[in-house]
Amino acid sequence: MNEIETLSAIIRAAGQKMLSYEAPAVYEKEGHANFVTEADIAVQQYVMEELHKAFPDAAFMGEEEEEHHLGDGLTFVVDPIDGTTNFMRHRRYSVISIGAVENGKPVFGAIYDPYHDDLYTAKRGEGAYCNGKKLQVADTPFHNALVDAGTAPYYEELWDLSIESMRKVLAACSDIRRCGTAALDLCDVAAGRADAFYEWRLQPWDYCAGNLLVEEAGGKVCAITGEEISYDKPVPILAASPACFDQMRQMLLDVKNSLSQ
Amino acid sequence: MNEIETLSAIIRAAGQKMLSYEAPAVYEKEGHANFVTEADIAVQQYVMEELHKAFPDAAFMGEEEEEHHLGDGLTFVVDPIDGTTNFMRHRRYSVISIGAVENGKPVFGAIYDPYHDDLYTAKRGEGAYCNGKKLQVADTPFHNALVDAGTAPYYEELWDLSIESMRKVLAACSDIRRCGTAALDLCDVAAGRADAFYEWRLQPWDYCAGNLLVEEAGGKVCAITGEEISYDKPVPILAASPACFDQMRQMLLDVKNSLSQ
Repeated sequence: MNEIETLSAIIRAAGQKMLSYEAPAVYEKEGHANFVTEADIAVQQYVMEELHKAFPDAAFMGEEEEEHHLGDGLTFVVDPIDGTTNFMRHRRYSVISIGAVENGKPVFGAIYDPYHDDLYTAKRGEGAYCNGKKLQVADTPFHNALVDAGTAPYYEELWDLSIESMRKVLAACSDIRRCGTAALDLCDVAAGRADAFYEWRLQPWDYCAGNLLVEEAGGKVCAITGEEISYDKPVPILAASPACFDQMRQMLLDVKNSLSQ
Repeated sequence: MNEIETLSAIIRAAGQKMLSYEAPAVYEKEGHANFVTEADIAVQQYVMEELHKAFPDAAFMGEEEEEHHLGDGLTFVVDPIDGTTNFMRHRRYSVISIGAVENGKPVFGAIYDPYHDDLYTAKRGEGAYCNGKKLQVADTPFHNALVDAGTAPYYEELWDLSIESMRKVLAACSDIRRCGTAALDLCDVAAGRADAFYEWRLQPWDYCAGNLLVEEAGGKVCAITGEEISYDKPVPILAASPACFDQMRQMLLDVKNSLSQ
């Protein structure tokens, strides 16, 4: 098996484990309405053990760990359940995300939606796929764009910025979607189901695999505020089709500047 | 067959017709980013013909018609595809909604999600069901509530109100979801996947069947501004669990009052 096939087998099995928790115990984490369930912890444990067997020299960075540090060697950046609130509420809108980073850049990755048995995979330079079908971003013009928006719910200091960004999107584009699962929002952009996704603060495990998917599907990704994405700390993320990227980024920067004055 | 079984057979078959359109022709309607596809028109035609065969004395009110008038006799209020934008973008988040109104009130209805084969049904006084399983609203406290929000995208004059409402929800509750399919948002409330749903202007075909589902699942529904819901004209809709209804309604009214000053 090549590395994508190995990763695919692990993430699919992890998805079955995730679905086996019908009413998981829930624990509160730091921040507003930030939860973790016993399923998040069990899935992360499973993924790490299986990745360690398959890639014994690799390191790991997972959401449900204490320490987050990225070296130059192969490191798996894991979100065991992205969309934990959706998972708790039985919304069937949660995924597992595993990105493999080397020398500070994602090199391959997978996102698995166990509710729809959708397996998204990408390898740097070789395209992005969902269940074997090649993905391509949309070419909707900006004024008709459908935009997946993040609310940065755990960070009260970012709510005004998030809400004002939605106001601008609603006026300039077609409409907003707010689904609550950043990794799946990035799959939306890669698959052309949305034209853009942004969130003003996002953790590496939320965007690592998804960023690669978007880029390999012909889209563009950046930190809204211009810094390099380092994949070991939170950044404000924008992902969009080339048809919408520049206008989206300028609009978001204008919102930020208007609030800073 | 009783009336729910008859309606269920029709709406399931209509769902298969809906899924058969992979790349439907799209037409623009009046208002911002308001679309209709050939699938909406074909599904409405099919539903009306089949309802006419099964209920020959009933009248019809459908989204894709010119005239909307409600008499006292049995009238079917039909949304052939709720979530047309989602449908066009292959987001798998669209439903068919059929409510039966008599003497100005919904008496039975069905909502069908063909992507998940989920059939939601309700009859006044006899409970709400999804695929035969009884539905019950959640009892999450207001500060942890997950709220499905509408943006009233076709009505520019309501965007500020919609955005300011989202600002308050984000601060007072757990988070917002914006899915773009009001009838399915109402199913979310009935099934306990969300604690509330509101939109500042909603058409009868969007809320007719869903309102009955929410009420029969133990939830509460109102026009936010207090008028009686007449089921033949648009109103601002709030649907919520009893645990969240009063606080949600007061918060939304406060937002409206703050913008009117």
